[in-house]
Amino acid sequence: REWDSNPRVLVNVGNHFDSKRSVFKAPRRGIYSFCFHVVKVYNRQTIQVNLMQNEYPVISAFAGDQDVTREAASNGVLLHLEREDRVYLKLERGTLMGGWKYSTFSGFLVFPL
Amino acid sequence: REWDSNPRVLVNVGNHFDSKRSVFKAPRRGIYSFCFHVVKVYNRQTIQVNLMQNEYPVISAFAGDQDVTREAASNGVLLHLEREDRVYLKLERGTLMGGWKYSTFSGFLVFPL
Amino acid sequence: REWDSNPRVLVNVGNHFDSKRSVFKAPRRGIYSFCFHVVKVYNRQTIQVNLMQNEYPVISAFAGDQDVTREAASNGVLLHLEREDRVYLKLERGTLMGGWKYSTFSGFLVFPL
Repeated sequence: REWDSNPRVLVNVGNHFDSKRSVFKAPRRGIYSFCFHVVKVYNRQTIQVNLMQNEYPVISAFAGDQDVTREAASNGVLLHLEREDRVYLKLERGTLMGGWKYSTFSGFLVFPL
Repeated sequence: REWDSNPRVLVNVGNHFDSKRSVFKAPRRGIYSFCFHVVKVYNRQTIQVNLMQNEYPVISAFAGDQDVTREAASNGVLLHLEREDRVYLKLERGTLMGGWKYSTFSGFLVFPL
Repeated sequence: REWDSNPRVLVNVGNHFDSKRSVFKAPRRGIYSFCFHVVKVYNRQTIQVNLMQNEYPVISAFAGDQDVTREAASNGVLLHLEREDRVYLKLERGTLMGGWKYSTFSGFLVFPL
């Protein structure tokens, strides 16, 4: 799944990704793989992006270089999700000038439990 | 799959990766996961790497730091491929001094459709 | 799987990840996907992280920026593992002030052989 200010969803089998809210909702219990790459354009801020499972942050990524035109905060993780669990990205710190352009967020079921 | 100027292919089950041209050709319709990490050695250029599906760029990654010895342009995505679709990396901007050393490109079928 | 000085293991189905030693041991022959993101806090060192298969480095990642509060050395790869093969991360160069905080290491079986 990929999006920007006007998100473009590349793959959404089963339609479990709510592209309006950019939230993935688990269709069943299992192990899921997620990864994200959030691109920050040139500015003087450090950004922190959290991958959220329901209301809780699971992993974080940072991008803080001041002399770089574009830099990405990336990370990936395996999660054990229950049915209906929600997974989404949250910009914890900083702002994204130009929106989520070039940023990606992907996930898939590795195996059900 | 990993390669450099003289690419070294670590995994190529089914032989669907053409290591001479560094192009993956989908053996069947389905959802595939791809990720890449392209390492740039110290120089004064910004690089942009595109992941291409046939003739079209799908996602991009950037590396542009001037004071860093090695920096990576990374991204990953899920793609819906038809049989015979080709997926490969293209250096859209900049040059890689030292070739594709330390760079990786991996993909696998998540599930068939 | 995610860990820090006091590693927190998020997912460990089958218990094939030895969290005490941070080593994954393959339960069976097959193709596995691994990825890691090792975060370095502000200091004047370049780090190099190797993904090891048994005693051998397979891929490397670097982080060397001196002006950034947090930067990640990331990479990912598919590996063909035999049963009992061990996969782990090794800090080849530099030190991690603050330990492995925010760093992640994930892997799963893509398909058995």
